[in-house]
Amino acid sequence: MAVYTQLGPEQVGAFLALYDVGELVSLKGIAEGVENSNFFVETTQSRFILTIYENRVNPEDLPFFYALLKHLHEAGCKVPRFMSDRNGNWLQTIAGKPACLIEFLNGVSVTEPSAAQAHSTGAALGQMHQALADFTLSRPNSLGISAFRPLAMRCTAQGLDAIAEGLSARIFAECDYLEAHWPTNLPVAAIHADLFPDNVLMLGDNVTGLIDFYFACSEIRAYDLAVTHSAWCFSGDGKVFDADVSAAMLSGYTQAVPMDAATRDALPILLRGACLRFTLTRCYDWINTPADALVTRKDPLAFLRRLEFYSDPSQVEALLAQLP
Amino acid sequence: MAVYTQLGPEQVGAFLALYDVGELVSLKGIAEGVENSNFFVETTQSRFILTIYENRVNPEDLPFFYALLKHLHEAGCKVPRFMSDRNGNWLQTIAGKPACLIEFLNGVSVTEPSAAQAHSTGAALGQMHQALADFTLSRPNSLGISAFRPLAMRCTAQGLDAIAEGLSARIFAECDYLEAHWPTNLPVAAIHADLFPDNVLMLGDNVTGLIDFYFACSEIRAYDLAVTHSAWCFSGDGKVFDADVSAAMLSGYTQAVPMDAATRDALPILLRGACLRFTLTRCYDWINTPADALVTRKDPLAFLRRLEFYSDPSQVEALLAQLP
Repeated sequence: MAVYTQLGPEQVGAFLALYDVGELVSLKGIAEGVENSNFFVETTQSRFILTIYENRVNPEDLPFFYALLKHLHEAGCKVPRFMSDRNGNWLQTIAGKPACLIEFLNGVSVTEPSAAQAHSTGAALGQMHQALADFTLSRPNSLGISAFRPLAMRCTAQGLDAIAEGLSARIFAECDYLEAHWPTNLPVAAIHADLFPDNVLMLGDNVTGLIDFYFACSEIRAYDLAVTHSAWCFSGDGKVFDADVSAAMLSGYTQAVPMDAATRDALPILLRGACLRFTLTRCYDWINTPADALVTRKDPLAFLRRLEFYSDPSQVEALLAQLP
Repeated sequence: MAVYTQLGPEQVGAFLALYDVGELVSLKGIAEGVENSNFFVETTQSRFILTIYENRVNPEDLPFFYALLKHLHEAGCKVPRFMSDRNGNWLQTIAGKPACLIEFLNGVSVTEPSAAQAHSTGAALGQMHQALADFTLSRPNSLGISAFRPLAMRCTAQGLDAIAEGLSARIFAECDYLEAHWPTNLPVAAIHADLFPDNVLMLGDNVTGLIDFYFACSEIRAYDLAVTHSAWCFSGDGKVFDADVSAAMLSGYTQAVPMDAATRDALPILLRGACLRFTLTRCYDWINTPADALVTRKDPLAFLRRLEFYSDPSQVEALLAQLP
């Protein structure tokens, strides 16, 4: 959530001259993105995001993201495209780092989603999944089921228990449970894998853009619904479940992607997996970020509370009853 | 250079509803400003900067800044206005902090100014000074001549000498010199006091906006020219003086504000004062910012090098010869 590379208008002007997009009119560093530097760029013709890829995104993954967004755009999904320059290149170098010019989309990220907004988001997620049925590139999920236990071990039992008493035992027990029950019979496809409200642009109740695909990967498709559900249907701290938002999201999604029995059966496991993934990465960041750093550390227990919700048989029963 | 307060679109939508400016279309935190939080806000009607005042700006000073920008705007100077809401209020509260909605101006801040750009900036500074001749509000300069020695003492001799050997002696000698020679016979008026290239928006060679008036204060008017000259006419590290940029700036300024003999005589002292002011604040920030903080610490010696330039009689003679 910061600008790690400073760019002057002279550099950006030279960069834009590669493209047929007009002359630079405005340039502002924006506080957005996961360890990328992002700039709002306005030209005499249009508006863009200029993204510089810092350490967290592997440049070798960029062709996957480019192809994914191109495929989605051509299928009519609302996603930002990577712009191509006059020679057809979409990947450049600026300040010695990989950089892309990306379409700017209007819309804002809601922080308190309504049921109507959750319905639109579920529908947009389902539409995206339908559009990706014939997308053939793949990218491993570095934060999938096989990564949970190693990540927990890197946090160390001591580190986890310093966050909350008994956390280590709870997490390793969940690793045991999920490894024993993780589904193997569900369709795998390219998924977004991080569709938090931050990554959905909306105007009113309408989705105007799905953004920030840098965790996109090949994974059980319904896991994407699980991530989105866990991210949207609770208060930020995970303490309050919103049944209306949940029902609306499931309704929106299943109108686009009908739910079969195998997926329905596995959904509780996938929901728990999504919660463990974010609990683990937040614990890891918590343990490895100094308390006085300027970066805001996210509450590592916010997704543990969701995990407990999804582990409660009576809550799961009520949740599955929301499915059409 | 960060966003210290997070705002959701629900809060911003309610804030915008106070004004007659249309509906929210886009909201991005921007990495700009001195310890304020700034957001790019686009509505169905126009674009704005929403500024939240964090600790560094004293809310009691905001009426001075508001009146200053209103006065300049009415005089035809290119500055952003504070927007007034339906009831005529320009100062609001958001997230419990003072906040204003400010006009968005096109243009970019150059990092390698050309002579033509320096000429335009000198002219815009002069035009601003002419427009402020009948501006009657005042605000003390908390970083003026009387603040130099106390600030040096807060840095401590040990702290200064840890930055560079002999720095403490050099700085206290400069305090002695400036206190003995500071002019008392020059006109005092409202000045910008921080017109670095960062704070000038340009399109091509034309100034489209002077921004970030939060150091504006009542001070010897020509001191503003001294600050601007020291900020524009050297390489960032202060090692290389650009005589063409200097001549162009002085030419642009003096076309708007003719230079009298008293100002010309005092200019070398004011230039040295400007350099000492930025040397001291940068030393203070250097000493008080952890080396591993995410905030970029500015080179404390970059303005000491300019101070040495302006203290060299042969350089000063050549500089004064550039004046018409």
